[in-house]
Amino acid sequence: MSYAALDERSVGPFLATVPAVAARLGGTPDGWTVREVGDGNLNLVFLVTGPEGGVAAKQALPYVRMVGESWPLPLSRAYYERLALADQAAHAPARVPALIHHDDAMALTVMALLSPHRTLRGALIEGERYPLLAGHLAEFLADTLFFTSDLAVPVADKKARIAAYLGNTAMCRITEDLIFDEPYYDAPMNRHTPGLEDVVAAFRADVPLRLAAQRMKARFLAAPEALLHGDLHTGSVMVTASDTQVIDPEFAFYGPIGFDVGMILANLWMAYLAQSGQRPADRPDPWLLDQAEALWAGFASRFAGHWRALDLQAEHGALHALAKADADLREAAIRDRLDSIWTDALGFAGCEMIRRILGLAHVADFESIADEGLRAGCERRALRIARSLLVDRPSFPGITAVSQAIGQELALA
Amino acid sequence: MSYAALDERSVGPFLATVPAVAARLGGTPDGWTVREVGDGNLNLVFLVTGPEGGVAAKQALPYVRMVGESWPLPLSRAYYERLALADQAAHAPARVPALIHHDDAMALTVMALLSPHRTLRGALIEGERYPLLAGHLAEFLADTLFFTSDLAVPVADKKARIAAYLGNTAMCRITEDLIFDEPYYDAPMNRHTPGLEDVVAAFRADVPLRLAAQRMKARFLAAPEALLHGDLHTGSVMVTASDTQVIDPEFAFYGPIGFDVGMILANLWMAYLAQSGQRPADRPDPWLLDQAEALWAGFASRFAGHWRALDLQAEHGALHALAKADADLREAAIRDRLDSIWTDALGFAGCEMIRRILGLAHVADFESIADEGLRAGCERRALRIARSLLVDRPSFPGITAVSQAIGQELALA
Repeated sequence: MSYAALDERSVGPFLATVPAVAARLGGTPDGWTVREVGDGNLNLVFLVTGPEGGVAAKQALPYVRMVGESWPLPLSRAYYERLALADQAAHAPARVPALIHHDDAMALTVMALLSPHRTLRGALIEGERYPLLAGHLAEFLADTLFFTSDLAVPVADKKARIAAYLGNTAMCRITEDLIFDEPYYDAPMNRHTPGLEDVVAAFRADVPLRLAAQRMKARFLAAPEALLHGDLHTGSVMVTASDTQVIDPEFAFYGPIGFDVGMILANLWMAYLAQSGQRPADRPDPWLLDQAEALWAGFASRFAGHWRALDLQAEHGALHALAKADADLREAAIRDRLDSIWTDALGFAGCEMIRRILGLAHVADFESIADEGLRAGCERRALRIARSLLVDRPSFPGITAVSQAIGQELALA
Repeated sequence: MSYAALDERSVGPFLATVPAVAARLGGTPDGWTVREVGDGNLNLVFLVTGPEGGVAAKQALPYVRMVGESWPLPLSRAYYERLALADQAAHAPARVPALIHHDDAMALTVMALLSPHRTLRGALIEGERYPLLAGHLAEFLADTLFFTSDLAVPVADKKARIAAYLGNTAMCRITEDLIFDEPYYDAPMNRHTPGLEDVVAAFRADVPLRLAAQRMKARFLAAPEALLHGDLHTGSVMVTASDTQVIDPEFAFYGPIGFDVGMILANLWMAYLAQSGQRPADRPDPWLLDQAEALWAGFASRFAGHWRALDLQAEHGALHALAKADADLREAAIRDRLDSIWTDALGFAGCEMIRRILGLAHVADFESIADEGLRAGCERRALRIARSLLVDRPSFPGITAVSQAIGQELALA
């Protein structure tokens, strides 16, 4: 079978030929409902429901959907996505959708339908709260990152896994260009809210800021610490009151742990900073800042817990000396490693916030603010915070310092 | 052809079947002289001379020579060595021996004979001086490291090169174990000069030191910045008054630039610190400290020069934003990168000095000091310096600070 893009008509008959999928749906294609809902930037996503159950069928297009056929993108990203889904499921099975079927030639991945889940970003814009969210995300991060790192995986096995993802260069390249480079020069696809011209000009002339962004790029390029999701923003998280699922790991590769951590924190902070534009009459709800703090605290404590529980009878990771009987050394190493993840996370969070406001791919949190003046105000505050996170990292020894800085920005507004 | 270890009798007839080698030697095997000179820890090395010229034929053994058949080691290291010789020759052709022939099945690499070169380590022990040494080593380091890094190589190409070396895990594992782990616990093959028992005990209980060594190990495991030689001590350098050649890159892999830099600096510093044991009546000759300083300065300036000369018309490296017209940003980035290489180099140098005194593989600089008391005194001073390099890196903002610290240690002796 060679590649052909599916559509709402062809996807049912195609899936009917796959026994595992047909069995899950039940009945025949004429009794299935199909909805194409790909609101992301890169792919087709079909939600298919039958009498017995539902599936989500995601198919990569050979170009970037939001830009068009002028920007080709290899179908191999579907292969890396299903590889990552399987690896993540090995460590955090409750936090990722079950993989039902994949077809590398069709660049198609069929997963369990997440229902009645909705996208976290949309829910946060509407002011929804999810009491289990921070804990679930901490669990996903700590479990997938720790158990694919040198702390847990024997070194030859880890190098084989690094190699397995090294070919996902086209997706990494998007991050390299859009997050670390383009926001800092007049790249053709950049856009920004009117009124931010002064910040745009200042950032392009800001040597310490640009240097800091390039330093983060160098980390992104050459720090294969663990298997990253690689695109962990609030649009890659699906939620209900009782469940949280992380989807869309097509940017997966071995990179610095702080990248995933920093990106999700940045998106929570942006959600918070957008509130004064979305509901200018209300005081911002501190719940989102609390969630960011709880997420980091939960990640740090769970990551440390995995470390303390390492079973040295089994084949051990290369850093096993740090897990041996000497508890003083192990505890010092845990603090040291969490400090370095935190420092990385701050820098990556700063890059993510800047690129979502000055680069190509914006976020609905800010975009949904119709009043351009209000929007520019929110974005300007976010940009100020982001710059500090990047160039003044020692000022943020812990996450409460970030919450305070954000609070001060809003108080000045 | 399947693998069989050669010996002084069989190597001539074997090489006679290789046209390129036979042509270089001239005549027939019965007119060739053969000498097995492998004084290293891992391989057979045959120097073969004929009427027309000479070759060095290096064959890997399936075990670690210095330990014996009880420690198996894959023959694939010969494959990685010839791969690295070719990659290094692309960037620093004057500093590595020409590759004449390789035979992966036989784990055999045939190179131009280096004559009348001798091993740098032996020459330094005898107090020889080489006025071009520091410049040549700086050239090797800057050219091989810069031009295999993200600064010079497009990212997809670089990832393919990282992948090409990822399988050299057995050699990396030796470094991981012998350099970063074993010196800090009672590993069975450790040995040390009598009289150092107090330092051995103190180091094993030294949490900041062990944490620093493990931090360096984490960098070694997951920082594929450039193609490293991987074992750049003074026994891997062959010299004459006018030439310097770097040999034996069988530990090659993509790792942190500071590893190669730190290892060669550590070996120069050890050569200097050993002098007061080798010739106790003489004042130590500051030439070796000057060489270390000149090596670092030469490396830094040549690395920066390559950066400033980057041709952005050609396919560029991923960090190309730092090479664009903005000279302020570029110069800030050069300083920043050299600072981070220096910081890494200090840590790796400290690890190298400690493992050469307390681990399995010692160096002739100290071992050749017959008087155990004198030797222990030299080694104790080296260990004190090494510990400072590892745990007190901010005290050494530049290399002259290291020279001064070494001078102070000797003054206290």
